[in-house]
Amino acid sequence: MALNETHDAGLQSWVASANTGKSEFPIQNLPFAVFRRTGKNEAFRGGVAIGDQVLDMAAVSAAKALGSAVQTQVEAAAQAQLNNLMAMSPAQWSALRLALSRALRAGAAEEAALKACLVPQSEVEYTVPAKVGDYTDFYTSVYHATNVGKLFRPTNPLMENYKWVPIGYHGRASSIRISGVDFKRPNGQLKAPEADPVLKPCNRLDYELELGIYAGAANTWGDAIGIEDAEDHIFGLCLLNDWSARDVQAWEYQPLGPFLSKNFATSISPWIVTLEALEPYRTAFTRPAEDPQPLPYLSSAANRERGALDVQLTVAIQTPKMREAGQDAAQITQTSYRHAYWTMAQLIAHHTVNGCDLQPGDLLGTGTLSGPTPSEAGALLEITEGGKNPLSLPNGETRTFLQDGDAVVFTGWCEKPGAARIGFGECRATVLPARQV
Amino acid sequence: MALNETHDAGLQSWVASANTGKSEFPIQNLPFAVFRRTGKNEAFRGGVAIGDQVLDMAAVSAAKALGSAVQTQVEAAAQAQLNNLMAMSPAQWSALRLALSRALRAGAAEEAALKACLVPQSEVEYTVPAKVGDYTDFYTSVYHATNVGKLFRPTNPLMENYKWVPIGYHGRASSIRISGVDFKRPNGQLKAPEADPVLKPCNRLDYELELGIYAGAANTWGDAIGIEDAEDHIFGLCLLNDWSARDVQAWEYQPLGPFLSKNFATSISPWIVTLEALEPYRTAFTRPAEDPQPLPYLSSAANRERGALDVQLTVAIQTPKMREAGQDAAQITQTSYRHAYWTMAQLIAHHTVNGCDLQPGDLLGTGTLSGPTPSEAGALLEITEGGKNPLSLPNGETRTFLQDGDAVVFTGWCEKPGAARIGFGECRATVLPARQV
Repeated sequence: MALNETHDAGLQSWVASANTGKSEFPIQNLPFAVFRRTGKNEAFRGGVAIGDQVLDMAAVSAAKALGSAVQTQVEAAAQAQLNNLMAMSPAQWSALRLALSRALRAGAAEEAALKACLVPQSEVEYTVPAKVGDYTDFYTSVYHATNVGKLFRPTNPLMENYKWVPIGYHGRASSIRISGVDFKRPNGQLKAPEADPVLKPCNRLDYELELGIYAGAANTWGDAIGIEDAEDHIFGLCLLNDWSARDVQAWEYQPLGPFLSKNFATSISPWIVTLEALEPYRTAFTRPAEDPQPLPYLSSAANRERGALDVQLTVAIQTPKMREAGQDAAQITQTSYRHAYWTMAQLIAHHTVNGCDLQPGDLLGTGTLSGPTPSEAGALLEITEGGKNPLSLPNGETRTFLQDGDAVVFTGWCEKPGAARIGFGECRATVLPARQV
Repeated sequence: MALNETHDAGLQSWVASANTGKSEFPIQNLPFAVFRRTGKNEAFRGGVAIGDQVLDMAAVSAAKALGSAVQTQVEAAAQAQLNNLMAMSPAQWSALRLALSRALRAGAAEEAALKACLVPQSEVEYTVPAKVGDYTDFYTSVYHATNVGKLFRPTNPLMENYKWVPIGYHGRASSIRISGVDFKRPNGQLKAPEADPVLKPCNRLDYELELGIYAGAANTWGDAIGIEDAEDHIFGLCLLNDWSARDVQAWEYQPLGPFLSKNFATSISPWIVTLEALEPYRTAFTRPAEDPQPLPYLSSAANRERGALDVQLTVAIQTPKMREAGQDAAQITQTSYRHAYWTMAQLIAHHTVNGCDLQPGDLLGTGTLSGPTPSEAGALLEITEGGKNPLSLPNGETRTFLQDGDAVVFTGWCEKPGAARIGFGECRATVLPARQV
């Protein structure tokens, strides 16, 4: 993929709210979601963000407003689950993006027809935008792996395999929920030292700051996707919160990995920012010279030179006291995806090297994206060093782990000189009290 | 659930092949599958086994041959994926079973109508009978956990959590295949001591003898299923082979559990034996007195008294030499599911205690069902003690792990005095050579 006219920072839309320089969704972004108007009992359908509006792709499809050359893609983008769109080729995705970009540009002939297809974002609700067949979670931040390893295994924080294997495990697809859906604090077996375990509400509830990667076209079962082709199988990215019950995790995770400590809820942001939209923000990832080089199936020149993505990410917490006082969520972390030790292409190549078949709409979590410094840590477990050093919030409150009523808000965006700033929107959910046991 | 007229060992069917005493599928069994006639380019649809025939439920539905009271269930059982049938209540499943039992009995008025709906099993092929949303694999044999633990962690074979937590992890749904579908030996990172890892075909390919449990009606996300209600959420059981690349597993599995070592293929038998059909084979599971008692959410009198199932299981291997010589697969293991340390009901209660939502058609593997003696070991890893002691086959060949061309065949059945013997059929697949790397 390369930069093209859709990335031109000078482009303006006839949707004025897209041109402020502050919108998450200028005409250079054009992310996809699945939405309906709130309280209207309508069917969910696909939409594209432009400024503070949603372009209703079902309405665009009915009006055939983007022309017959991309009507197949428009129909796929209009559905209540975007798997058919994801199953297409990068050339098909790119043709749809170009048609959208041209039709939404200031002066476009399609303005009148498309204006009738706009719905204000303030009037809609979203749902999980694809049928996620399988959800895989990786562990791509060497800083997170080291920080957590120190707490769980002080004598052996970073395992020998980490710099060779893009470590991953299978997560739970059924409990993925869209941003804004709150969830109950999970119950689970908690084990104090020298005591028998008991069933109780999790006492060390945490978030994990991640990006989610939606898989595109499937590979044939038994065949691998080579690293050169890997990005052709990535549709786009979203924000992802892999909620984690640390006390449950510590007791259950050996020898087969996390299970009930993770599968109660995973939150994702509604908007999927396409890989093509992210093209200006590709960057190199340079391994430290003393580290092993990736095995050939995980290595390519293009991957070294531009396999990483500079996506800025923040975490904020809004406590019930802040909410009552009318205060916004307080930011506690800012980092970038560019620090990840393994790239998206390496994750795809590794996942399929044994013949495992990825399907369109499968979701791959990056793992917690902690950066190199303490202020870039992507989970409370790291920030509070396992609960030992409470985090101070601006209003004087402290947190070791999350309390009932706390909302956690992730945001993500890309910006640099000469390119349009594009955003991911937000991923937000609030912790509800546990079910009584 | 209790014994009823459908379990009567004296029942005979007007399908003569069901009455031999040797059929896997007498009228007391009535398992479900999804099938089509081989080579006819037909649509897949649901069927019920009776003797050596399949009762085509799509034909039964079209003919309304079982009456209006169960037509809703018949229509669900006729579909190409049985999720809608699985989503029903035990009372609805039971009504369908009773209608099938009465209509297939010798002397039934429905004989003429149903005879037109029979297809010989010799003329059909099967497919995965449900959309498996999530696949979870457990670790319910304490013998397997101990045997494997000795190899992976000599100093700490059975972890402290094992007797408290029904250990499980999420597996891969996309690579589940029906019996008879062969698969390529996976490639993966292999690591010899003191050497860097290399990408190579797995050299320690193994099977794992398991049962698969299909989930029934969903629980509400955030709510748990209590152990007393757990079996209402189980539709039925099949044979399951959790193929495992032991060398890949040893290098990759810490700290997040098995991933590429398992997700290249999982084989299941086509026929789902319902929980009601298995009713005569319920049995007690008595924990050793010195073991901890399960926590209250994993404990009930009914579960102690009849939570286990006495399903006989065998493993056989057919090597290429046996195949060329016209020899059947050679049996190497026989055991029973009754030895499992955790019951089906405990798995359901544990899986949902944190609010994780099970969906109809979700598949729960029991984990390798090794019994207490060496001849009951459910994986080559155990039989050969990690490849140190080769297994001798009747034709003089030996195996440490599986070679290309080896077929692994599982069978399962229940039998006891006073009850009809019922079978699971077989789960079979052959190892194909690895993709070249």
